[in-house]
Amino acid sequence: MNLCLANRMRFIRASDIREILHVTEKPSVISFAGGLPAPSTFPVEELKQIALEVLEKEGARALQYSTTEGNPALRTHIARRMQERQGAAVSPDEILVTAGSQQGLDLAAKTFLDSGDEVLCESPTYLGFLQAAQVFQPRFVDVPTDDDGMRIEALEERLAQARRPRLIYVVPDFQNPSGRCWSLPRRKELLDVARRHGIPVLEDAPYAEIRFEGEALPTLKSLDSEGLVIQLGTFSKIFCPGLRLAWIAAPTGILRHFVLLKQAADLHTATLSQMLLAAYLDRYDIDSAIRRICDLYRSRRDAMVAALERELPAGVRFTRPHGGLFIWVELPEGVSARRLLARCLERDVAFVPGDCFFPGGGHENTLRLNYSNTPEEGITRGITQLAEALRAMVSNT
Amino acid sequence: MNLCLANRMRFIRASDIREILHVTEKPSVISFAGGLPAPSTFPVEELKQIALEVLEKEGARALQYSTTEGNPALRTHIARRMQERQGAAVSPDEILVTAGSQQGLDLAAKTFLDSGDEVLCESPTYLGFLQAAQVFQPRFVDVPTDDDGMRIEALEERLAQARRPRLIYVVPDFQNPSGRCWSLPRRKELLDVARRHGIPVLEDAPYAEIRFEGEALPTLKSLDSEGLVIQLGTFSKIFCPGLRLAWIAAPTGILRHFVLLKQAADLHTATLSQMLLAAYLDRYDIDSAIRRICDLYRSRRDAMVAALERELPAGVRFTRPHGGLFIWVELPEGVSARRLLARCLERDVAFVPGDCFFPGGGHENTLRLNYSNTPEEGITRGITQLAEALRAMVSNT
Repeated sequence: MNLCLANRMRFIRASDIREILHVTEKPSVISFAGGLPAPSTFPVEELKQIALEVLEKEGARALQYSTTEGNPALRTHIARRMQERQGAAVSPDEILVTAGSQQGLDLAAKTFLDSGDEVLCESPTYLGFLQAAQVFQPRFVDVPTDDDGMRIEALEERLAQARRPRLIYVVPDFQNPSGRCWSLPRRKELLDVARRHGIPVLEDAPYAEIRFEGEALPTLKSLDSEGLVIQLGTFSKIFCPGLRLAWIAAPTGILRHFVLLKQAADLHTATLSQMLLAAYLDRYDIDSAIRRICDLYRSRRDAMVAALERELPAGVRFTRPHGGLFIWVELPEGVSARRLLARCLERDVAFVPGDCFFPGGGHENTLRLNYSNTPEEGITRGITQLAEALRAMVSNT
Repeated sequence: MNLCLANRMRFIRASDIREILHVTEKPSVISFAGGLPAPSTFPVEELKQIALEVLEKEGARALQYSTTEGNPALRTHIARRMQERQGAAVSPDEILVTAGSQQGLDLAAKTFLDSGDEVLCESPTYLGFLQAAQVFQPRFVDVPTDDDGMRIEALEERLAQARRPRLIYVVPDFQNPSGRCWSLPRRKELLDVARRHGIPVLEDAPYAEIRFEGEALPTLKSLDSEGLVIQLGTFSKIFCPGLRLAWIAAPTGILRHFVLLKQAADLHTATLSQMLLAAYLDRYDIDSAIRRICDLYRSRRDAMVAALERELPAGVRFTRPHGGLFIWVELPEGVSARRLLARCLERDVAFVPGDCFFPGGGHENTLRLNYSNTPEEGITRGITQLAEALRAMVSNT
């Protein structure tokens, strides 16, 4: 029977990435497609200890319903880390624990966006944000970027033309998909624009702590004196993703809206998972664990950059990130990344075509490479295959 | 700074229950207010064993991202239990694992309801559904009920007047808040109406397996031959709520919409939690665990019914449920449950006033009592206090 669906469902489509990721389940495939952290960095032994302890000492509480805002000890840990690592003046009651950062994107979109409202984002931007926001049918306005981040004069132009601009979404540190990190002046200029227009800034910071080169730059949250910045943080890249633990940091006047929507969406994040993480943060040094993650990813980035420099034909450009999980590649104009992907899949190599990171599509000559989840040898082999496929394609056209 | 919020936020209010539940955190309070399962029934020892095993054998997989649809072994377990316990012809690919049933409510509302669309529900209905659906601004049409369930002629009348009826939401087994169980003829009549109007039925079944008296009745899902029934099931009441594990069972043509929205909302349910539950279902007999839960709740219901019969003044009516977690009380006309609550809180006894279970409010003389989370002695003491407060109130007016 054909049922009547809500209008929003006309805009919700299966993402290409899902299809690509299905292909990459074949063990023979070298996948640069996902955004998976390296499982060798997961705290398996620590969690075995902690799971026993938490269930032994507080089993009944760990398996019961709990508050929407999140575990108080965990919120305190998060606020303290934000103070220590970012210098951000955040208190525990400004933290909402979420089921991954994707839920933070959903809650922010739900809070601020009506159908037809404008949301400004980088070009390219994170696909997961496009998917979360699309449910509420906003108008995506993607703002041109360069190596320093969003181009502010372009942002001002877009804002001057916008009718109902409601939110600016950015990933300033090692953006997904581009790997780029915003310069300090751009960060300050963005906040100045947001303040003048009275528009909230959603700062997605999953990779801010995955820096393996250079000095950390202040987060937008730490630079914000107007209460305009909502920061999304996550344990997926610095602990593990399988517990789905992340957080929103926002002024309490904004956070209370997120809390109400979170309650309507799933009541609260899993009690046991939160208690496991809080106990881990009590007993172990997450900062040294993060240093080990950074060391590993630095080696993998080095291997990928070296292979790309060695193997790629002239006319291909790519980013050299100082952190995060991704490298962004621009093929020569007119060369299709989707056609390249088809040829790479025949060689058991996968990546994500870049067009899906642009709300309006296009940019068919771009692609995203992930290096965090492939050992160096596989990176070298996979990039060699990719480059061979590319050369074959270019010489045939 | 005053930020511009989406229109939907005008309809999202903090629930009274949240405030009441805050009060009940005082250990001296006897709370009939929440809907918490008894923690003594939680599988703490089993989970200690299983957590070690899962992390030992498959730690890396348990802590990694996983698919939106859910753990394959868990989906198979769920489908098999639905076949065996309900006789419902459900296959694993018709199951989506969700972060609690609240998420199922959110996904169903998101899929079917535009602003102004009509959603039909029982009067009274589950508050969590009102909260989830409110985000999408439908028009709630509550249909009168009697001891056998929704009154079908009233449903037909409402449907005849509706402009865009899109969804019928019901809790046929031991409804929250009323504790009532629909008769078999009503179940069949509802499906007949839904079929004739081509409207999907959202069957929320959290208590279907918590029956401690009488014979199980067929679920709507098991009676449905048209693919119109979406059933929400949950492990919160038969295992534990703190892992946030539930599911949606729906025909694949409907389920794929839920999967896309779930991906946009939180990517997937926690991998480790799902693997723990799948391993539990492999190794332990959940049905005998459910029998123990039912035995406990039967005793508690007996204690509450006996105390209510003994203590309450004439003119008060209440339900005598054969399952579930709740008893519904109707005070004499003109007696306010909110005023009674204020007096009970002075005596350290809490419950939920019934008006919040009606989309249009009213019914100020009704209230909901939970018996699952209070030992018998506390039930007797709490009901005695409640009855004293009521008598004092009635004699003063």
